[in-house]
Amino acid sequence: MERHARRIARVQARLAALDVHALVVAPGADLTYLTGYDALALERPTLLIVRADGPATIVAPLLERARVQGEVLLDDLAVVTYGEHDDALVLAADRIGGAPGSVVALGDTMWTSFTLGIQRALPDHRWAVASDIIGPERVVKDAEELVRLRAVAAAIDAVHRRVPEVLRAGRTEQAVAADLATMIRDGHDEVSFVIVASGPNAASPHHEPGPRTIEEGDVVVVDIGGVLDGYCSDMTRMYAVGHAPPEFLAPYAVLERAQAAAVAAVRPGATAGEVDAAARDVLAEAGLGDAFVHRTGHGIGTQTHEEPWILGGSTVALVPGMAFSVEPGFYLDGRFGARIEDIVVVTEEGVEVLNVVPRDLVVVR
Amino acid sequence: MERHARRIARVQARLAALDVHALVVAPGADLTYLTGYDALALERPTLLIVRADGPATIVAPLLERARVQGEVLLDDLAVVTYGEHDDALVLAADRIGGAPGSVVALGDTMWTSFTLGIQRALPDHRWAVASDIIGPERVVKDAEELVRLRAVAAAIDAVHRRVPEVLRAGRTEQAVAADLATMIRDGHDEVSFVIVASGPNAASPHHEPGPRTIEEGDVVVVDIGGVLDGYCSDMTRMYAVGHAPPEFLAPYAVLERAQAAAVAAVRPGATAGEVDAAARDVLAEAGLGDAFVHRTGHGIGTQTHEEPWILGGSTVALVPGMAFSVEPGFYLDGRFGARIEDIVVVTEEGVEVLNVVPRDLVVVR
Repeated sequence: MERHARRIARVQARLAALDVHALVVAPGADLTYLTGYDALALERPTLLIVRADGPATIVAPLLERARVQGEVLLDDLAVVTYGEHDDALVLAADRIGGAPGSVVALGDTMWTSFTLGIQRALPDHRWAVASDIIGPERVVKDAEELVRLRAVAAAIDAVHRRVPEVLRAGRTEQAVAADLATMIRDGHDEVSFVIVASGPNAASPHHEPGPRTIEEGDVVVVDIGGVLDGYCSDMTRMYAVGHAPPEFLAPYAVLERAQAAAVAAVRPGATAGEVDAAARDVLAEAGLGDAFVHRTGHGIGTQTHEEPWILGGSTVALVPGMAFSVEPGFYLDGRFGARIEDIVVVTEEGVEVLNVVPRDLVVVR
Repeated sequence: MERHARRIARVQARLAALDVHALVVAPGADLTYLTGYDALALERPTLLIVRADGPATIVAPLLERARVQGEVLLDDLAVVTYGEHDDALVLAADRIGGAPGSVVALGDTMWTSFTLGIQRALPDHRWAVASDIIGPERVVKDAEELVRLRAVAAAIDAVHRRVPEVLRAGRTEQAVAADLATMIRDGHDEVSFVIVASGPNAASPHHEPGPRTIEEGDVVVVDIGGVLDGYCSDMTRMYAVGHAPPEFLAPYAVLERAQAAAVAAVRPGATAGEVDAAARDVLAEAGLGDAFVHRTGHGIGTQTHEEPWILGGSTVALVPGMAFSVEPGFYLDGRFGARIEDIVVVTEEGVEVLNVVPRDLVVVR
């Protein structure tokens, strides 16, 4: 309880410092972070309103009153419930209040139907994204959050160790993905995503597992994640079925070096851009710069993707407690692709790598 | 392919008729409905832009280009991809275009961060919710959609038949819910939700299964749903463990009559409000009006909750092809609660009830 009250207090301090009148968040990671409440994301809005100048308010449907009372971990909270014929967004606007021109920060993932209703009720307010306020709080994980991130990282490590049990020639990507989902479920509360991208499909970073039959000589990207105790895993390893194409081995060795270089660049005071550059430079020197089509990583916590973004040119300075993926890759259309991904945490001394399964290409069968 | 092109054409006709310049939707049910593409809902926007006056455009991250090409089922589509350093929302605004004052309809569930970015780039446009445009299209299911709704209804019927295998005194709600999730997964592609609300918890309509141990003499609400082939199930039946409290039986008999009355009121030309009243009147006559704290139902399709809303006073006229839940209930704080829920479809002749498991109280063990 203490913990969530402290988070609300920090948000209020930040609102005051930035002259933002209020923060409004809907069900999802922000609401859970601030109140402990994992509310239903449905058409009846549940909205947490935090004003710089008073106690927090939650606006929730009458039929979910018992859930709010049972699950919200804040003592100092006003609860406003509404019935099926009330306009919840007008009620919320009333609780937001503030003079015309006031700035209100709205949850990044909040539904647009809620935002448009609030904007209609407060036509002269101005609007910002909630991540400007709550992002800098969520980005630094406390000791309890790090315990959970380590646990969920261990859970996904265990799944990667078992990939050779199910990945083999003659099976479809979809069949392998279904088996991996079952394995993820064993050690997590839920499955977030499963990418099994084989042969030429490995050149598509966000490939959806499909009907393609995996063949001898394929390289396969396995990028998987789940949620355990509210925190997310996300981990990629590379597999070859029987053997890899000979021309894959040299770029893969470069990728291993690139990923290791980016991990080694992680320390307090380094910028996100420097971590990205550490990987990108190694790939570019080997002529693979154009084949590395995405940023080096993303923060992780209660969402699989959150701040900080490990993006070229970013001047965001790393501080202890930040957790993010380091996942360079290369993608060669029509041929193959590869990615290696670990979750790392910035420590006082440098870096803690949460995923420990070796990064070598794993040859199955 | 034809099918999605026809849907786009109908949306364009509606945009023109309502003098709305463009529709913008993000990953989710609207995007899938219009393009077939089940895109990733992440921080890199994927946006479908349909203007009244030209071909549709999809704005998507460069690293998902292969997915767009492989999964979008529209021939006449402009694809605009962006890299990690581009402002996707400025790109989208450019494609939306239109004179100042133009009305743009934005996806109801689209992330607010996308909406605020588009609003910033088009400061003199006006904004509406996409459901004003696409709702009246999605609300009427075609023959192929009805086939899928029947299939997923049969899948959840099968789970309710198996509830007596896992629901018994001495087990926690959470344990029963976990077993039901496994059963749902057997016949669906994914689990949407599982409500197991026992004893006094049954008085909370959206109760989250918790550590409470189920006892002899409890009544238990089991409200479960999943997704099969893109379409949703949602079905509630009532169970008693060993026996029900004697004082539960009379109100439950009223509820059975109320639910049957609402189902019987479903026919083309009736209003949603009349269906709600049919159930509510029966409960009110028995003194249970105040205990029925929610609307009678919600539409269902690719989302568990969508239009039409079966709400008191609604003048929305039912037309053949509409699919929705009929789920009256009563909730008595500290004592017990009950709900009976079927999915029904409006037919030319009246109503087709998709769930066939009997609605009687099921006594387990």
